[in-house]
This record gives sequence, C-alpha cells and structure tokens, in this order.
Amino acid sequence: MNPSSIMSARDLEFLLYDWLDVVSLTSRDRFADHSRDTFDQVLRLCQDLATTYFAPHNRENDLHEPTFDGERVHIIPAVGKALRAFADAGMIGAAMDYEIGGMQLPHAVYTACMSWFHAANVGTAAYVLLTTGNANLLAAHGSPEQIDAYVRPMLEGRSFGTMALSEPQAGSSLADITTRAVPAADGSYRVFGHKMWISGGDHELSDNIVHLVLARIPGAPEGTRGISLFVVPKFLPDADGNATVHNDVALSGINHKMGWRGTVNTAPVFGGGNFIPGGEPGAIGYLVGEPNHGLAQMFTMMNEARIGVGLASTALGYTGYLKSLEYARSRPQGRPVSARGGAQVPIIEHPDVRRMLLAQKSYAEGALALQLYCGKLVDEHRTATTEPGRDRAATLLRILTPIAKSWPSQWCLAANDLAIQIHGGAGYTRDYDVEQHYRDNRLNPIHEGTHGIQSMDLLGRQVTLDNGAALAALLETMAATIADARDGGDAELAEFAAALEAATGRLAATTAGLWRTGDPEAALANSAVYLEAFGHVVLAWIWLAQAVTANALPAQDRPHAAEWEAFRQGKRLAARYFFRWELPRTAPQFDLLDSGDRTTSEFDESWF
Amino acid sequence: MNPSSIMSARDLEFLLYDWLDVVSLTSRDRFADHSRDTFDQVLRLCQDLATTYFAPHNRENDLHEPTFDGERVHIIPAVGKALRAFADAGMIGAAMDYEIGGMQLPHAVYTACMSWFHAANVGTAAYVLLTTGNANLLAAHGSPEQIDAYVRPMLEGRSFGTMALSEPQAGSSLADITTRAVPAADGSYRVFGHKMWISGGDHELSDNIVHLVLARIPGAPEGTRGISLFVVPKFLPDADGNATVHNDVALSGINHKMGWRGTVNTAPVFGGGNFIPGGEPGAIGYLVGEPNHGLAQMFTMMNEARIGVGLASTALGYTGYLKSLEYARSRPQGRPVSARGGAQVPIIEHPDVRRMLLAQKSYAEGALALQLYCGKLVDEHRTATTEPGRDRAATLLRILTPIAKSWPSQWCLAANDLAIQIHGGAGYTRDYDVEQHYRDNRLNPIHEGTHGIQSMDLLGRQVTLDNGAALAALLETMAATIADARDGGDAELAEFAAALEAATGRLAATTAGLWRTGDPEAALANSAVYLEAFGHVVLAWIWLAQAVTANALPAQDRPHAAEWEAFRQGKRLAARYFFRWELPRTAPQFDLLDSGDRTTSEFDESWF
Repeated sequence: MNPSSIMSARDLEFLLYDWLDVVSLTSRDRFADHSRDTFDQVLRLCQDLATTYFAPHNRENDLHEPTFDGERVHIIPAVGKALRAFADAGMIGAAMDYEIGGMQLPHAVYTACMSWFHAANVGTAAYVLLTTGNANLLAAHGSPEQIDAYVRPMLEGRSFGTMALSEPQAGSSLADITTRAVPAADGSYRVFGHKMWISGGDHELSDNIVHLVLARIPGAPEGTRGISLFVVPKFLPDADGNATVHNDVALSGINHKMGWRGTVNTAPVFGGGNFIPGGEPGAIGYLVGEPNHGLAQMFTMMNEARIGVGLASTALGYTGYLKSLEYARSRPQGRPVSARGGAQVPIIEHPDVRRMLLAQKSYAEGALALQLYCGKLVDEHRTATTEPGRDRAATLLRILTPIAKSWPSQWCLAANDLAIQIHGGAGYTRDYDVEQHYRDNRLNPIHEGTHGIQSMDLLGRQVTLDNGAALAALLETMAATIADARDGGDAELAEFAAALEAATGRLAATTAGLWRTGDPEAALANSAVYLEAFGHVVLAWIWLAQAVTANALPAQDRPHAAEWEAFRQGKRLAARYFFRWELPRTAPQFDLLDSGDRTTSEFDESWF
Repeated sequence: MNPSSIMSARDLEFLLYDWLDVVSLTSRDRFADHSRDTFDQVLRLCQDLATTYFAPHNRENDLHEPTFDGERVHIIPAVGKALRAFADAGMIGAAMDYEIGGMQLPHAVYTACMSWFHAANVGTAAYVLLTTGNANLLAAHGSPEQIDAYVRPMLEGRSFGTMALSEPQAGSSLADITTRAVPAADGSYRVFGHKMWISGGDHELSDNIVHLVLARIPGAPEGTRGISLFVVPKFLPDADGNATVHNDVALSGINHKMGWRGTVNTAPVFGGGNFIPGGEPGAIGYLVGEPNHGLAQMFTMMNEARIGVGLASTALGYTGYLKSLEYARSRPQGRPVSARGGAQVPIIEHPDVRRMLLAQKSYAEGALALQLYCGKLVDEHRTATTEPGRDRAATLLRILTPIAKSWPSQWCLAANDLAIQIHGGAGYTRDYDVEQHYRDNRLNPIHEGTHGIQSMDLLGRQVTLDNGAALAALLETMAATIADARDGGDAELAEFAAALEAATGRLAATTAGLWRTGDPEAALANSAVYLEAFGHVVLAWIWLAQAVTANALPAQDRPHAAEWEAFRQGKRLAARYFFRWELPRTAPQFDLLDSGDRTTSEFDESWF
C-alpha cells in the first residue's frame, strides 16, 4: 500500500510545524536533544514501519481473528512481527523518560507517529496503546521496584499491558466491581474475580502480560472510594528470577466483535484455580501505591486511553477519507447534469461526491488537529516554563478530553460511512478497506467510557469543577483565535470569527442556564446533546485556527510551491465547509438545551 | 424468539385499522372478498411464519453466508425451507390478481405482512422481494404467454426472480450498459454481457430463476432510450416442455458483503459460452414488450423495489428498537444521578438510554407508518372510485418514493446504531442481533439507487414534473392534517401543527427558490441536503397524523384498556420527540439551501 493512502505526511507536517510550532518545544530541557531533524526522522520511520509491517495484515486481522482453544489464544504471526519491529525501533517508550528507557519525544510528535499505526492497522496498534498506557501509569504510581520489574520490559516489547477494569455485572459502573484482593503474609495480595471486555487479556505475542487490575480489599469503603489497583503479571519469577511460573490468571472465553478483530478481547478469571502458583489459591498481585486510590490512579491511564481512542478513531476516519478520495478520482461513472452524452467522468466531478469528500476532510483533518493539540497540551503541562502555564495546559486538557474521545468517535465514524457511500456497492464488500474501517470504528463510541458517560463527565464535572475554570480557560483560548481571525484582514475569516464568537456565547450561556437550577437531574438530562454541540464548537475553533495559520503561510518560499498553495486552499475550503455546513447544526441543539426540554425523561416506561 | 422482539403486532393494528382504516378498502370490488377477519388471519399467519421459519436462521445466514465453488452456489438449507413455507402459504402472490394466482390482498396489508419477514430475517426475505417485483413487472408488461411461463411458477415458489441491471462499468449509470441482445431467427434474442451486484443471481432454492435483463439491441439509440428488457430464464424447456436445459448464464463470482449476507449477490455472465443451449452462442432471452422501452418497464419494478428497500430498512430499525428496549429493561447498571448507593437500576431508568430508545421509536414507528401509507396509496391508485382520486394517489406515491426509500435507510440505520449503543460492549459482539442488524442495514442507502440518486430524482424530477403538481398534492395533504391537529382542541397538537405548517412553508419556498434560476447544476448542487430536509418534514407530518388518530382513540372501549392507553401515550410522546428534537434539524438545512451555498462544488480538485 502507498503510504499516501494511510495518512497524510503533508498534513502532519503542517499541523506540527506550521500550526503547533512543536520545534519551539526543543528549547525546553526535556526536549533539548531533539530538533526538527529528529522529529522528521522519527515520523519518517513510523511512516515506513506502518506501511511495511502494519498495513499489509490489516485485512488478515479481520478475516482471521484471534481464536481461543480453551487454553491458548492464537493470533496470526504478522501481528507479533509488526509489534516486534515497533518495539525494536524504540517506539513503545518514545514519549517516556530517558531514565526508564524512553526517548522523551514530545507527546504531540508521538501522537502524530501513532496516527500512522492506527490508520494502517488499528487491531495491531491497540496492543501498543494498552502497553504504553500501562507503562505510563506504573511509571507515575508504581514503586521503583515495580518500574524495574514491569515498565522496562514493556518498553522493550517483552511484556505487554492490559487495563482490567470492567466486570460482567459492572461495565460502565466501576463502583460495582466485586473482584477481591486479599492481603497475604508476604505483603502481596491474592486476587479473585471475573473481568470482562479486557483487550489483550491473553496471547503469546510477548513473554509476559502485565495486568493492571481494579479490586477491593476486604473492609474497603463501598463504591468507588474502596477500589485499589494491583499489578498482576501473567507469569511470576521462578527461583532463578525468570518469569516462568504461570500466575492464576485464565480466560473463561474471548469475545467475537463486529470489527477491530485483530485485538483479542477477553473475559479473564483471576484466582479461578486454573493455575495455583505456590499451591495457594488466588492470583498473586501487588498493590500499586496506596490502598483505595485505585480509581484515581487508573484515570491516569484512562484519560490517556480516551485520547488514544479518539486518535484511533481519527486515524480510521482519515485513512477512509484518503481511500475514498483515491477511488473517486479513478472511478468513472455518470456525467455532469448538463452533459449531453460523451464519456463517463470520474465520480469526483459530481457535486454530491465532493460533498461527501469535503465532509470527510473536515471531520478527519479537524479531529487530527484536535488530537495533536491535545498532545501538545500534554507537553505544555509537563514543560511549560511557568506554573500557571502548566496549570492552564492541564485544565484545557481536562475539559478537552471528553471531546477528543467522543467527537472523532462520532464524526470519523460518519466519515467512514461516507467513504463507503462513495464506493457504492463496492464499499459494502470486504474487497475494499473502507468496509472494515467502518466496522472497526464502531467500537469507539463504546469503549473507554461511552458517549453518554463522556457527556456526563463533560457537563457534570469538567465544566463545573473550580467554578468553571476549565470552560473559562477554553473560551479565553478560543477568544484569542477569534481575535486573530477578525483582525487579520481577511473578510471571510472575519466572518467565521463572528460565527464562532456567537457560538461560544451560546455555549457559555447554555452552560450557565443548565446549572442555574442547581438540580443535577435536570441539568444532565440532555447531556448527550450538550456534548455534541460543545464538540462542534470546539471543532469550529480548531478549523478557524488552522485557516488562520494556512492563510499566513509563505507558500511561495517552499519547495513544491504549487502543491502547498493547493494545500492551503484546501484547509480554507474545509474551514468554509465546517462553518457553513456543520457549525449551524448547533443552533437547534442549543435551543433544545435552553428550553429545558424533558421529553426524554418525563414519562412512564410503559409508554414504550 | 418471541414475536414481540421481531415486530409490534399492536402497532401494525393501530396503523392499519385506526390510522389508515384499511377495512374501508373492502368496499372496493378488488378487495370485496376481504374483511378485517381475513386481514387479521393473514397478519397472524405471517407473524407465525416469520417467527417459526425466518427468525431462527437469521444469524446462521450471517455466519454461514452463501459460497460459490466455481459451478454451484451453496446456501444453508433453512433458507429454502423458509421460502417453501412462505410460498406454500400463498404469500408470494398475496397482493396480486386472482387471475394469475394471487389473493388480491390490499398492498397496505401486504406491506404489514412483509414487515414481519424483513424484521425476522432480511437475508431470506430478499428473495421474496425480488421475486414479487419480477412477477409484478412481467404481469404488467409481459405477454400472456410470458405470464403463464414465468409469473405463475414464481407465485408458486417454483421460480425465483432477479433484476439484472447493473454492470461492472455501469453501476448507477444505466445509460452506459453494454450487454447486447441480438435478434435470432425464431424471434428470440441471444444475450451477451456481464452484470454486477445481482442479488439471487444463482442458487438452487427454486427449480428455475427468471432473470429480467436490461440490454441493447444492435442499432438501438444511445443512452437510456436504447435499452430493452429481456426475460432470460436459467433453465429452458426441453423437448417435453420441462425446464431442464441450462441456458448460457453462469457466474463469474459472488460478492462478499459487510452484511445482508443471507442473500447471495452475484456477478453473472450472459452468453459467456459456459452453457450453449442448442449449440448457438449467447443466452436465450425473450423481449418483454416493445424494444427500447426497457428502462421505463424496469421502473415498474424499481419503484416497487425502492419502497421494498425502505420497508426492509424500517423493519431492521424496528426490530433493533424492540430488542434494545428489552435489553434496557433487563440490564441493571449504574444508578440515577441523585442516588446515593443502593442496588443498580435497569438502564432504562437513565435519561440518556431513554433518549436513545425514544429516538429509535420515532424513527422506526415513523418509517413503518410511512411505508404503510405508501402501501395504501398503491391500493388507492388501483381502486379509488374516481379518476382524480386514482391520479392523486399515483402522484403522491411518486413523490414519496424517494423519501420512503431514503429516509428509513438513513434513520433506521441510525436507530440500529443506537440499539448497539444501548447494549454497550455486548452490542458490538456477534452474540447480539443488533450487531447484525446494523451491518445488514448499511446496504440500504446504496442499493436500488443511492442516497445521491434519490435526491436527484426528488429535486430534479418529482418536484418539477407537471409544474410541481406532486409537491402541491403533498402539501395539500399535509395541510389537511395540520387543520385537523389545529382544530382538535388539543393545545400541544395545535403547537405541533403550527411547527409543521412553518416547515412546509419553508419547504415550498426553498423548492421554488432553488429552481428560480432555472440552472439545474445550481439547483441540484445540494440535493442531498434537500432530500434530508424534505424527509424530516414528511415524517413530522406522519407523526402529527398518528398523534391525531391516537388522541381520538376510544381506548376505554377496547380490551386491555390500560395497555391501549399506554400505547396512545407512547404515540404522542414519540410525536413530541419528533417535533422537539428532530424537526428543528431542518432549519439550518433550509438556511443552507436558501443561501445558494456552492462550497462543495466551486473549487479545484487539487485542493483535496
């Protein structure tokens, strides 16, 4: 496959260097060894790895999903080979600290790197997402011994990670987990319980698997305040220190999904008596940090995973766009409305096909920009030169996380839907990638917190915490972009700026209005609509910001000036599409929210 | 499976008897032998057949799709058994004339019957859809000999039908088909060509297959004016008149789809030399009607198939709604926002789950009502007592066809998306029906004319023909419902009536505005948006009409009065949802159309 069907190197270049100016980060100590050159090299490396090792088995992952024979999970060999190449390149720890074996790449650049892998093969890339999240959590909350024992092997690709939260009776409701962790004499714990929906829960891709498990210690407080976090390795060290003793972790089965089939999804049993190391019942686990702080610790990983899900979704939307663009350029069918006879024309000439391409462009490029922006916020949070600067980055990241997770999950899935539609009947067959992308992407509005849960988090927590400081910071950031666009001397951008200003005004007023009664039931009743309207306002801002940058680009100084000029025009066009076709969708949403409508809650269940 | 998870007998009863008053049709000659009793009996029969023969192998159809070994197509036996039971019950010709073996059921009732089968198993039901469409076309345009030879066996289930239009180089563009039909000395034709996307193109479910094939006779005019229609049976009669001689029709392969896998989709080759009956090259075919009238004749079938696709889509949306409702009632997870501890509650208590159920209810029940309304228009067109009455029904049917096809394809797919979301992770696995319904339903915006093509048909033809007579007739019909709702003494319905009146006003003004310039390129540039706005206005009307009827229902006189009362309230609730949550989406769509926006057409292709 041609890399240009996977991801756009040119767009990544624009977003990282022209828009986010990531090179400026190299003035910070953490990134002092880096330069535009090292960034370019790693991006090129990832493009090559994704093209060579990941893309070729994407469909094979779908057609030959993992199987479980009652004891072992079987996965096609290409997955292991790709992950080996990825790990050997040092990419698992690419954004992590030198001292634990990382290469301290800015998170913004790392996000761009990962977009290549998710776009090429989301099923295989997911093992990386889980492992880096796991390693980052342990690096943040684990003891030095735990870091040595688990994080270093993960960075080398010898161990992979999982996050074992959900249980059959407690999917979204973590307060209701029942997995127990009983203290043992040696300071370790014995873990007993059934987990559900655990990706990467068993396989032989790596020497070991590091499960991060939420469980209750007997006597812990009820609900989420009584949850602790444990590291439970698949294999424990033998007398020589080699990890060869099978811990009491087994699978009761694996799940068969609509898509994203390359990533094995499992139902593990901890302490089920399948393997009893040392003869004692229970899976041996080790407490991470303090007891009863498990949920907060897990949210280190969860927030990262949420943005990771957003990126995966974005990458699927993006590659579907590129593939349908290629198809539209090469498939002759029909004629313009005004034509009388003559040869059939490529379908890209039909206005309705252009509409579907432009919508995809606005969704996929907009979502990618948001993901990289969030990546840069991680870097700012870590390295900004002032404390208010670091705090501000953390605050913005916090309020943008539900959007970065949910917006691409919705709209890049919509993009994949349009990519199929452009292919016509062909797009509905397994002969074309877009068919798989659509099925793969349908997972994203579900895992790592459903749409509904993101909406409750956004409206119930993020906009209310600290007297609404996060929303205020976001609106202030948007106001700066609005001012740039208004004062830049470009009439169309000034028009978009005015539209965004009006939308942000509505967002602020609606938010205040929803909370005016102080009744959470009433405020949150229509939170899903709030999430969607909020998301579209954020993306309008992202598009305005990109258009401002593109407008100011000195295209004529670049190599391939004509191509850059077309690229700039494309950014402006997509911004125009977003402002004329998408942002207006929010008006009836704000109207509905402002009306305090209770249609969906005030009725008797028997009326269904 | 419980029939109440497949389709709602209660809603069908309400729509047919209370809303459409189909019993009044029995005063017409065509339906004089029928009564409420015979309608009830056939509906009950279909419920039983769908539950017993169709629903049980729905997932098997998906997991064991048809295979092609290079010579024969293999299909799981349950499909043949179900279709046999269907045919034996006389259902293939249920709506057709007595004189060719039908039972002259009103089309509205037949539509309700078919909703059971599509909801139970869309893959198996599709063979019926193709066969009845084929039989109706031949009954309308074929010679008496052709009717005897092909239609009667189809009604008995001994032959099944196909519609062979598309070709690899001509999917949506029928003007570009190249299949040739060369006259032979005996008055028959020899057909040569490759077709594509032909459902039911080969199988052994029936003794014979009747292909209706579009082809060009040498010397015919270019484009669509030179297309003729041929009947090409798979098997020809031998010397004894038994259909045992294999015509020169073979498959070059079958297509592997995302969903709807139970219906084999093929690439047939006519006259490829695989079988040469009588030693002469070419598949033997027989002209239907006059030469060069093929496209118009095929549209008899195509319009029926479009509404059939709408019904299939509707049925999938409906059954997904019922299944997610059942799941929401039985799955405990989480607690109300205001709860402090206590047991988990069924998820139906969460406002966001109610929103997703109510949206599905409004889409699925609204779409079903539209389908039955269109069915009744077929009956009125056939049997109304005055000529203007018949013309009016035909006109309304014509303008509603693109909506009846496209609206359920879009919104009942959206319903299936919500049905998955309600199931959470479980809905993404192949353990739950909703996963399959979503994949099955994704075909509907593509086949029998894509969304884009429906939008061009609606805005480019249906609203302009005869000086806009069809739109005028539709607006007049809506105005009558608006008057009923406004004058009925119910303040909320009067409010909805005012909203619909405003929307119909915008629809009329926007339509006129788009055509004011007389430039088809400009008028049609945003036709997809027009289609969507038009569809939502139509459905708002359908909901208002249902609410008016429900409001006037004498529930207290019925058996199960409490249930009926809840049902009435449910109709009103769904109407409220549609008016508050859905109809307002059209405002920015009309704004966009009125602005004459050319964002999606006026740019250079290199900007992508």
